[in-house]
Amino acid sequence: MLIVMRQTAAPAEVEAVAEKIRSLGLTPHAIPGAQRTAIGITGNREGLDPGLFEGLAGVREVIRVSQPFKLVSREVKPDDTVIDVGGVLLGGPGIVVMAGPCSVESREQLLAAAHAVQAAGARFLRGGAFKPRTSPYEFQGLGEAGLKLLAEARELTGLKVVTEVMDADDLPMCLEYADMLQIGARNMQNFSLLKRLGTVGKPVLLKRGASATIREWLMAAEYVLAHGNYQVALCERGIRTFETATRNTLDLNAVPVLKALTHLPVVVDPSHGIGIRAHVPAMARAAIAAGADAIIVEVHPRPEQALSDGQQSLRPAEFEELMRQVRVIAGAIGRGVAQGH
Amino acid sequence: MLIVMRQTAAPAEVEAVAEKIRSLGLTPHAIPGAQRTAIGITGNREGLDPGLFEGLAGVREVIRVSQPFKLVSREVKPDDTVIDVGGVLLGGPGIVVMAGPCSVESREQLLAAAHAVQAAGARFLRGGAFKPRTSPYEFQGLGEAGLKLLAEARELTGLKVVTEVMDADDLPMCLEYADMLQIGARNMQNFSLLKRLGTVGKPVLLKRGASATIREWLMAAEYVLAHGNYQVALCERGIRTFETATRNTLDLNAVPVLKALTHLPVVVDPSHGIGIRAHVPAMARAAIAAGADAIIVEVHPRPEQALSDGQQSLRPAEFEELMRQVRVIAGAIGRGVAQGH
Amino acid sequence: MLIVMRQTAAPAEVEAVAEKIRSLGLTPHAIPGAQRTAIGITGNREGLDPGLFEGLAGVREVIRVSQPFKLVSREVKPDDTVIDVGGVLLGGPGIVVMAGPCSVESREQLLAAAHAVQAAGARFLRGGAFKPRTSPYEFQGLGEAGLKLLAEARELTGLKVVTEVMDADDLPMCLEYADMLQIGARNMQNFSLLKRLGTVGKPVLLKRGASATIREWLMAAEYVLAHGNYQVALCERGIRTFETATRNTLDLNAVPVLKALTHLPVVVDPSHGIGIRAHVPAMARAAIAAGADAIIVEVHPRPEQALSDGQQSLRPAEFEELMRQVRVIAGAIGRGVAQGH
Amino acid sequence: MLIVMRQTAAPAEVEAVAEKIRSLGLTPHAIPGAQRTAIGITGNREGLDPGLFEGLAGVREVIRVSQPFKLVSREVKPDDTVIDVGGVLLGGPGIVVMAGPCSVESREQLLAAAHAVQAAGARFLRGGAFKPRTSPYEFQGLGEAGLKLLAEARELTGLKVVTEVMDADDLPMCLEYADMLQIGARNMQNFSLLKRLGTVGKPVLLKRGASATIREWLMAAEYVLAHGNYQVALCERGIRTFETATRNTLDLNAVPVLKALTHLPVVVDPSHGIGIRAHVPAMARAAIAAGADAIIVEVHPRPEQALSDGQQSLRPAEFEELMRQVRVIAGAIGRGVAQGH
Repeated sequence: MLIVMRQTAAPAEVEAVAEKIRSLGLTPHAIPGAQRTAIGITGNREGLDPGLFEGLAGVREVIRVSQPFKLVSREVKPDDTVIDVGGVLLGGPGIVVMAGPCSVESREQLLAAAHAVQAAGARFLRGGAFKPRTSPYEFQGLGEAGLKLLAEARELTGLKVVTEVMDADDLPMCLEYADMLQIGARNMQNFSLLKRLGTVGKPVLLKRGASATIREWLMAAEYVLAHGNYQVALCERGIRTFETATRNTLDLNAVPVLKALTHLPVVVDPSHGIGIRAHVPAMARAAIAAGADAIIVEVHPRPEQALSDGQQSLRPAEFEELMRQVRVIAGAIGRGVAQGH
Repeated sequence: MLIVMRQTAAPAEVEAVAEKIRSLGLTPHAIPGAQRTAIGITGNREGLDPGLFEGLAGVREVIRVSQPFKLVSREVKPDDTVIDVGGVLLGGPGIVVMAGPCSVESREQLLAAAHAVQAAGARFLRGGAFKPRTSPYEFQGLGEAGLKLLAEARELTGLKVVTEVMDADDLPMCLEYADMLQIGARNMQNFSLLKRLGTVGKPVLLKRGASATIREWLMAAEYVLAHGNYQVALCERGIRTFETATRNTLDLNAVPVLKALTHLPVVVDPSHGIGIRAHVPAMARAAIAAGADAIIVEVHPRPEQALSDGQQSLRPAEFEELMRQVRVIAGAIGRGVAQGH
Repeated sequence: MLIVMRQTAAPAEVEAVAEKIRSLGLTPHAIPGAQRTAIGITGNREGLDPGLFEGLAGVREVIRVSQPFKLVSREVKPDDTVIDVGGVLLGGPGIVVMAGPCSVESREQLLAAAHAVQAAGARFLRGGAFKPRTSPYEFQGLGEAGLKLLAEARELTGLKVVTEVMDADDLPMCLEYADMLQIGARNMQNFSLLKRLGTVGKPVLLKRGASATIREWLMAAEYVLAHGNYQVALCERGIRTFETATRNTLDLNAVPVLKALTHLPVVVDPSHGIGIRAHVPAMARAAIAAGADAIIVEVHPRPEQALSDGQQSLRPAEFEELMRQVRVIAGAIGRGVAQGH
Repeated sequence: MLIVMRQTAAPAEVEAVAEKIRSLGLTPHAIPGAQRTAIGITGNREGLDPGLFEGLAGVREVIRVSQPFKLVSREVKPDDTVIDVGGVLLGGPGIVVMAGPCSVESREQLLAAAHAVQAAGARFLRGGAFKPRTSPYEFQGLGEAGLKLLAEARELTGLKVVTEVMDADDLPMCLEYADMLQIGARNMQNFSLLKRLGTVGKPVLLKRGASATIREWLMAAEYVLAHGNYQVALCERGIRTFETATRNTLDLNAVPVLKALTHLPVVVDPSHGIGIRAHVPAMARAAIAAGADAIIVEVHPRPEQALSDGQQSLRPAEFEELMRQVRVIAGAIGRGVAQGH
């Protein structure tokens, strides 16, 4: 249930409604919104009587929410969430481009990638310091040394840093170095980790699990919001199907479906999605045409030497050409490419 | 194996190569191509010795073909196949738009749809007279009466007619009325029907089976080409996955993968692909941005009364707006929308 | 809707009910059943008023049918359908074993397989004369020559013959030689063919499409019954999933689900299902333990020389050992292995 | 690579081989085995020269391992791993039955379930104290209070306790109360947690991820073994497919495939696998017939009041009947049902 307050409602009136909710053993959630102040209610196992709230001072409207996800729902918050990551607006009119290597491998590799993607127009640097690998014998990432290199690259280029956090133990370290924290596909339903991210003040990039339905994905985001962090973006990165010609099946259908169901920004990862270097630009163009707010692309100075994901990483010159195409499509749909401050 | 002839090769030299192939108990296939004359060989269970052909007069090159599909492969025919359907070029620079109702239901319904889509810029009219339905108790199509209405609509609008043929018995009738014959997803591996379509002189629109891999789909097209009909276009219409938020999962990854593997035109059906009216335009835009040569879209004058697929059919005004968006994206990638003669 | 007649109802009373149904523009279906005479109704788009029939002479009960499949449903016919194939009872207490090569390749191969499986206790000989193959360049079957060999093997061994019919053109020929007609997975929704099989007097083995839901499969069977042929058995043969360690994913969950939803016999094909010779016996045992009425198993005298499916075909000695295990499991659940007359 | 020592090899010879491996910058793993002493090597990115080890004292054989999983592989350890959980042997000849409620809800509920399943012949009590739930608003488990109830039930019944651990923070608490630690399907690739479980001395029940391939699942188990814990059992619990008639698709194909690839015990969860109470016994029978070493079944004294999974939980009387069937099938294949000391 959602309680929408009048625009003229006084803070004390809002607090009175919240107190009423708590008195019923339930939890109030003040919903941030440009157009209105609203309060979501969670904790009830059955529908509540709207009459409990309709008479309270300052209340304009009481809305039943039909979806199992509440705080992420457009029913509850009709206007788009825009996440301000150090001046780069994710979810605003401009398309945000995030790029960089799969793994941070060395200072030389990371800085080469960072300078290249910055010059071409990216605004975020991606790169993994903690790597979830199918095999225990594969490269597991540089750990804190990798985070430090990411921070150095940020100093040198002005790019924002997005990097994966794999567990609660690494969280403080990641918070220190990153601008945005990525939850990988394999951890999409690591509910303990999601709850922890609900308590931090940094934006979260929540990747879709390889076989997660859109509803399950939104429920995972709901965990983060319900624990207090509203700065969540959703990243489609390909689902698991019977098709073996591509690494995953990038599900662009999710883009318009999400834009209708939720106010959160939608990011697309064409690199993992299709997994074939030559076809990344086609999927990046399609993602933007479908309505994505951002793309995240793997770029490596020498893909053939990469410790992971080389087959899907663009070379700097290929990324430059991709950016040209991104600008064309983003322009055609009236959005353009996001700039920082 | 593929034998590429010199551009200067005489017809008798080409025939001599074909005869040599036949003498080995194998089948020669002359490959139509703008840049070169070539002859494919099928029927061999193991690799052939290139030396058998390299010395023959007029032979420029002998190429081993690595894929199990031969005639549909870009290895064998590098230049795009362009299908001329009565002056509308499918597979050429212009994006072709096909539109119309799922089923032909009545004269009034079909003509309303036909006039609307023609006015908005479509060049093909789609509409089913024979309908493959999951239940034997659902509307099975008007049969020949439906075909006659399609032909009447063509007379009145100049649109080309594409319609589904469900079995060999209906084929003569469909050949009489249609400009292009559709093989539905459920019949993609109806090999008897594919072989029959290999013997007709009309272009074929081969829809992907709901759980067909791209390789299986190309092999199905290979059946048609191997039996003599080179005018085949491939239509992605959504695959079956675990996701239930959309009717199918439109697999746009297939577009760049196909464009690399085959010379055949690629069509996308966003209507069946996502199955939700409000999201059809997003997927149509994305399909074109990904590199599709054509889209096929369901349009119904009154979707709420449709006998099939109403939930995914656009209203005429919505289709007009879609065409506006199609022109924008097609223009951005330098292609434009196809016109007839 | 289903109209159940009293056991004492006279034929004229049954006919009067059927006539009443026809007078409403609908179709009556007399449902064969040991315990009762019943009449199903199809053709109505909305629910009918039970009062239309409740007063008629001989009517005991009028039942609304909740499933989209009617004639195949246990709601409509609670007792198991038992198909008598020349004295072998499919769907009765005994487990029926069908076995033989994937394709009929030669007289020597087929007879060797037939004698071996007969000696070990099989009651049906399987073998394809018309082969649906992914590639047009693969072995397509011996056609009528193959059917004649199957008939010869039947003469020599007393085995019943089950073989695949690929299209309507081949149907008369298959009817002449086979005891049971198989519809392959790729043709499960070839509705034209299903309708034709509804008009013949031979039992049908309907394989599940590789990505067909159980509901779609039952609807496909409904096509055959609705066109007049009630002798249909359903064959689970593995579905398409993301898993690549097995050829398909044999879905044994379908066995108890089907036994609850339908009265038709359930057959399981462990050979195509898992696709690995060494694991066929485990899946055969599991199928019977799950409640299957029959199994169909690929056996080849020399699998390493098979023209198709050699990797999943058992050798005669392996089949003999499988039969021993089948008897043990069938005995444990109180069913035993079916014998002929 | 695997180095097999002679049975007569002295401990010092084994240590000398291990030291040689370390000197190459690689990691030796002593492989527990009844028939032989062997040492696995991990850490090498390319194949090693067998000659490095063949001459060392006590070495019988040097084997190249072809699979990406090493320590879990039957190539490396041919004899079955048998896990002794307080006297109950998992992976031995007897079929082990684990049963109990999805969630621990109350003392009364848990003890009723525990007494019932113990009386019927189960040897493990299952029950979740920490529950991974799709929605943050659903019941999340009783936490430590639930663990204490499980321990109390163990005292009263002698059952062993298996319960899920969701993250590293809860691990010490779970270690205190449980006999076996379950990793849930959503955490199958929570590599941080897997590594931690590699360091504890308790057996692990590793559930398959809903869309994990068998290979990925084995690699997840490899994480636990590679970090030092060899007591791992694998639990098939249904995969995600397109089918919606069942909750998941229990993949019994995995049973024989795993038994061939790995020496670890294989457990099947028919309750989550099919998700429909009436069909749990059929799948339990099939699992045992297919070769599973154990089953884990949900039992609740009053399923209609369960806080989770009520629709798939058996009532005590239904479980008793299931145990009767389990004994029949286990007997037919010569295994019987496992007893404790």
